[in-house]
Amino acid sequence: MTANPVLAHTLRGNWIENRHRGAICVSDAEGNILASIGDVAADVFPRSAIKSMQALPIFATGANVRYGLAGPAIALSCASHNGEPAHAELAASMLAAIDLDETALECGAHPPIDPAARKALFAQGGKPSTLHNACSGKHSGMLAVARALGEDTKGYSTRMHPVQQRVRQAVEEVLDYPLTESRCGTDGCSIPTWAAPIHAIARGFARMASGTGLSEQTAAAAREIFAAATSHAFLVGGTGTFDSEAMAAFDGRLMLKFGADGIYCGALVDSGIGFALKCDDGSVPAATAMAAALLLEIASPTPEQTKILQTRARQDQRNWAGHEVGYIEATEAARLKL
Amino acid sequence: MTANPVLAHTLRGNWIENRHRGAICVSDAEGNILASIGDVAADVFPRSAIKSMQALPIFATGANVRYGLAGPAIALSCASHNGEPAHAELAASMLAAIDLDETALECGAHPPIDPAARKALFAQGGKPSTLHNACSGKHSGMLAVARALGEDTKGYSTRMHPVQQRVRQAVEEVLDYPLTESRCGTDGCSIPTWAAPIHAIARGFARMASGTGLSEQTAAAAREIFAAATSHAFLVGGTGTFDSEAMAAFDGRLMLKFGADGIYCGALVDSGIGFALKCDDGSVPAATAMAAALLLEIASPTPEQTKILQTRARQDQRNWAGHEVGYIEATEAARLKL
Repeated sequence: MTANPVLAHTLRGNWIENRHRGAICVSDAEGNILASIGDVAADVFPRSAIKSMQALPIFATGANVRYGLAGPAIALSCASHNGEPAHAELAASMLAAIDLDETALECGAHPPIDPAARKALFAQGGKPSTLHNACSGKHSGMLAVARALGEDTKGYSTRMHPVQQRVRQAVEEVLDYPLTESRCGTDGCSIPTWAAPIHAIARGFARMASGTGLSEQTAAAAREIFAAATSHAFLVGGTGTFDSEAMAAFDGRLMLKFGADGIYCGALVDSGIGFALKCDDGSVPAATAMAAALLLEIASPTPEQTKILQTRARQDQRNWAGHEVGYIEATEAARLKL
Repeated sequence: MTANPVLAHTLRGNWIENRHRGAICVSDAEGNILASIGDVAADVFPRSAIKSMQALPIFATGANVRYGLAGPAIALSCASHNGEPAHAELAASMLAAIDLDETALECGAHPPIDPAARKALFAQGGKPSTLHNACSGKHSGMLAVARALGEDTKGYSTRMHPVQQRVRQAVEEVLDYPLTESRCGTDGCSIPTWAAPIHAIARGFARMASGTGLSEQTAAAAREIFAAATSHAFLVGGTGTFDSEAMAAFDGRLMLKFGADGIYCGALVDSGIGFALKCDDGSVPAATAMAAALLLEIASPTPEQTKILQTRARQDQRNWAGHEVGYIEATEAARLKL
């Protein structure tokens, strides 16, 4: 196996300390690869980066209408959020709409990722709950699907449950690629994750953005999901997150979502172009630098958008005493041109 | 540049998710490479993995005798510790012996790494101090060197201070390799770190273990440092750390120390063999798996030692809900044979 190229590295002082390899694909909805580097035929776990695809059954089952899941709830279904009050409260209200509470969530509990939210929670003597889990919105949406299907809500996160079967079928329709038990794992939030080629994931985001190749119903749902995520960008991540900041700055033109272990996916919504990347070693900061460098080239950013992307394409690193010790940055190789 | 081989990977479900490349060198004190894989001529930052070398000036300046720094204090000088009470209290007593306190430490403050110690500190309304910093022992030792030299203690962590000049010279003597301003950075605890070839670091550990090629005084100090670190293994890391567990289990036969950003170094003390490895992408869990796999081959472990090494050569990974989702493990390529 040929090694993927180095797409990001960290500098300490004046010497390169770490190297991060990876692959990036930019595709249109027909599957034409507009730009790529590295092995984009490799099957990778897209993890949380495809939550927007996993949200499609909310529309296909009519759960959105039935339970009044408006734009913010749909955005939260696509989120890996910080567990800030707005996130946790919205997840709670989504559950309340289906007569459930946080005990129904099978994602596990962890403290809010946002430091201020975490501090406030502990200062009030509060305990981390499943609502603070970064995936609580996605799980609440999946519970709404279970309700709409009239299925048992218990076990909704397991591979054979009708909810996960619907999610799998929705992702397969968008990717136009069969997912298989021979390349499957369990995600951090306990739902199944299925590996797919990087180029198929990039094409899938282009199909979501353009509707090309999707059924009319799926295309309409994809449009609503991207509109919800991009117009409620804060709910998709939260304070200080790249996804929220970039989507807010691009004002509907950019769908962007990271996934654990070095995944980044998204679409230039107006031009119907999708992209996907994987950092080989799973580093999220490195993948973030790669994504930002890519967007600097392909997203035609305004000066303001450029500034936001640049702070992620090269991220300063400080030590415990607060001294700047170096930075992580995308290499030239990550700056794919269309 | 040819890519280093994959020496560790993570599996999620039944599919490889992340790949970690790196280089490993095993050397004797004469610099004969006994086994290696990857580019071991590459200059890397050894970071905290060479604290045992950085402790040499404590002996060269007589600070150990003058300030009564016995085995435990020497072990803590070699430590990246968990900030447990035993660590923080010993650092405080080292400082008291030179009429200083934690305000003299320039390593920065952070909460104890050990979860129980962190919880206990916050439960008592305590605040993270510089004593909890993983490097507080090394810094206390460096302050003792400053005192012994009659130098200003303020600024002892900066590159041009006589303490850091002595540290640099000591490391150069052991590595038999000139350190240079053109490959230098600032470490997480604010002292300078200098890049050196992986094979020179491996040879340096062999020289520390055997005394070969070192002045009589340095050889004696190296022997005392390794004896202190291996016989007070808990102080070098702490609860649940690989370094402490492995050194305790090998009962003086093994010197082992990780460094930030994927470094592992050490020596088979009885046979005078040194080793050093770097994970290209800086992952500490991956480097740990590589080190454990290497030691399974070259350290002639007993069944009990084998068990400890195996739990690190393949580390199970669980998600927030507590389900086992996969593992990180060293590849066959990391299992170098002598």
